[in-house]
Amino acid sequence: MNELVPFPTSEYERRLDRTRERMREAGVDALLVTDPANMNYLTGYKSWSFYVHQGVLVTLDHDPVWIGREMDAKSAEVTTWMDDENVLYYTDDYVQSPHDKHPMDYVASVIDEYGYGDRSLGVEMDAYYYTARSHARLTDQLPEADVQDETLLVNWVRLKKSDAEIEYMRQAARLAETGMQAAVDTIREGVPESDAAAAIYDGLIGGTEEFGGDYPAIVPLMPSGDYTGTPHLSWSDREFEQGDPVIVELAGCKHRYHCPMARTLTVGEPAPEMQETADVVMEGLQAALDAVEPGVTAEEVEGVWRETIAKHGIEKESRLGYATGVGYPPDWGEHTVSLRPGDETVLEENMTFHMIPGIWFDDFGVEISETFRVTKNGAETLADFDRDLFVV
Amino acid sequence: MNELVPFPTSEYERRLDRTRERMREAGVDALLVTDPANMNYLTGYKSWSFYVHQGVLVTLDHDPVWIGREMDAKSAEVTTWMDDENVLYYTDDYVQSPHDKHPMDYVASVIDEYGYGDRSLGVEMDAYYYTARSHARLTDQLPEADVQDETLLVNWVRLKKSDAEIEYMRQAARLAETGMQAAVDTIREGVPESDAAAAIYDGLIGGTEEFGGDYPAIVPLMPSGDYTGTPHLSWSDREFEQGDPVIVELAGCKHRYHCPMARTLTVGEPAPEMQETADVVMEGLQAALDAVEPGVTAEEVEGVWRETIAKHGIEKESRLGYATGVGYPPDWGEHTVSLRPGDETVLEENMTFHMIPGIWFDDFGVEISETFRVTKNGAETLADFDRDLFVV
Repeated sequence: MNELVPFPTSEYERRLDRTRERMREAGVDALLVTDPANMNYLTGYKSWSFYVHQGVLVTLDHDPVWIGREMDAKSAEVTTWMDDENVLYYTDDYVQSPHDKHPMDYVASVIDEYGYGDRSLGVEMDAYYYTARSHARLTDQLPEADVQDETLLVNWVRLKKSDAEIEYMRQAARLAETGMQAAVDTIREGVPESDAAAAIYDGLIGGTEEFGGDYPAIVPLMPSGDYTGTPHLSWSDREFEQGDPVIVELAGCKHRYHCPMARTLTVGEPAPEMQETADVVMEGLQAALDAVEPGVTAEEVEGVWRETIAKHGIEKESRLGYATGVGYPPDWGEHTVSLRPGDETVLEENMTFHMIPGIWFDDFGVEISETFRVTKNGAETLADFDRDLFVV
Repeated sequence: MNELVPFPTSEYERRLDRTRERMREAGVDALLVTDPANMNYLTGYKSWSFYVHQGVLVTLDHDPVWIGREMDAKSAEVTTWMDDENVLYYTDDYVQSPHDKHPMDYVASVIDEYGYGDRSLGVEMDAYYYTARSHARLTDQLPEADVQDETLLVNWVRLKKSDAEIEYMRQAARLAETGMQAAVDTIREGVPESDAAAAIYDGLIGGTEEFGGDYPAIVPLMPSGDYTGTPHLSWSDREFEQGDPVIVELAGCKHRYHCPMARTLTVGEPAPEMQETADVVMEGLQAALDAVEPGVTAEEVEGVWRETIAKHGIEKESRLGYATGVGYPPDWGEHTVSLRPGDETVLEENMTFHMIPGIWFDDFGVEISETFRVTKNGAETLADFDRDLFVV
């Protein structure tokens, strides 16, 4: 077992078994997994190589096969539980080449050689990095294959976590706390946003005395001042000013497992309406967390939030949260369950979610979030960090 | 003009003119730009929202239109030069929804409303985030459109930089130097890799006295010890050991413009064969840089490297470098010109490249790189940082 692989092989085998079970249900003989988070989940593969085309071919009767760029084959050998003979690669002239060569040509040849060229093949049509051209090249070269869209097949397997996964998410929670504490300690009038971002990274990656962190799938987001209504801004060299609201959204990450967290700060005393809004967010967040238990549905949890804030005359249209766990850029969400109207998924023990209520007005916004695990006794929040507005 | 937009509108207008010129040559009436780097290049749009589907519709006779998620519309208004009336959005129930709703349904409706539903439409078939399903949904709903693959149309416009762009790349070079210096100062026997990564981030983002940095499109890569042959590994909690080789590849980033840089360190004195390899890499790098001038081709530059190292009995199959500039995760490469055999692109003034020669053996590897601008007098390296092995 390689030291770079974070779980015992038996854990990966269980994941593979459950994936194959879903493949049988879906009627696919082979599945080309291209989402980097799914590749990592099934094999351990972790390198930053998803900027070139790659994948893991999962079949019902052969060990998984990693297919990628020659330069990354050694990475596949040392960061996965796979045998070296199942690591196959294309040469560098396939990388970002003109139209005559595409990595999916090679992938198609592997699928064909393994005897799946004329069988049913699942692909992840809406996964990041599985481009329109990837699909066109693959299907052109496998005209006999019965290609099906199985975008979230592995994602659904990821929804319920093992105890070992939860343990890494707890470590990620420690890192999120360290990063958020750095934000609270650094953000001050006259400090450039970029200095605060650097301090947050130091907390997230330098970590605790016991361990450091991986890079999170999303950079720290920290809209401030006039821009707290633009939730996905990162930072600039602007200096914080007296009276600025600042929203910080970040995640600790350990072995690619995330614990996201958002808090809201104000530089100096908050305007009364901002504290009032924060109070509403905290009340709604707690009410929704209290509603979590095995057997309730995702939309029921959101409904409690919605009703709670409606008492204060506030409506919010975006979703309240989503499943989280393994992630690679650009997202730490799992893309399966959303806490929103219409999602009837029944919550079960050891599912994990990021519940991120936010209320934005024209001139300010408030976000306060928790990542939680469903236990038989209700929601267990993974991080332990004050929720109220931080006045700095 | 919004303070968050890094260039005057006239610069964006020039970019748009050149894009439309290429559109006319390609025979497309409209172009759906989905690569986040291309969206940024044409409009200034900069938020971390590329984890949901979005795009900029460029047409020959209407201002560009930003199309994305409702939550990000304000971002589009404040980080771009565009008029608010050209910012269009879909509601949150389109985000990561089951099959009945997909953001491209909305995008298709916009294209149709603007009168391009039955004309020739370019799409970026192989751009990150333009998924197979995006394309399937779009084309299903625009059956009369003549859809063409124009993946790199805007990327080619990006190849030659303006003086204002070069200035940001120079700032990125300062940030790369600061980050690399942090690596040299921090990497020591007994220090966890994650602590070194945190220090590098502090350099890249905390920056200089004058300015801080943006997040680079790729995290610092730092394979070490037994793993320098796996170039795309990031870091773990392993402590550096006496005798470790360490490759550090990073980029400074300013206003999304990158200056990548790689250096090789050794913890303690290097083995003689490692210094010999570094000498070969440095000789080849300098020879290839000396060969750069307007009028030579990309493959000719690579050929000089190849011949130089061949004198020492070494062959390297992967490409020597690539065009760089604006980037978003997962890549700071522009995907147009590669310094490799077969690429006959003629170099012109103000093209910018990352030349990254690396030689990997089974038990160690050496990478030493430079980002350079083509000037009429030859290559101008943007960063100023010793190239030799760093013994720490």
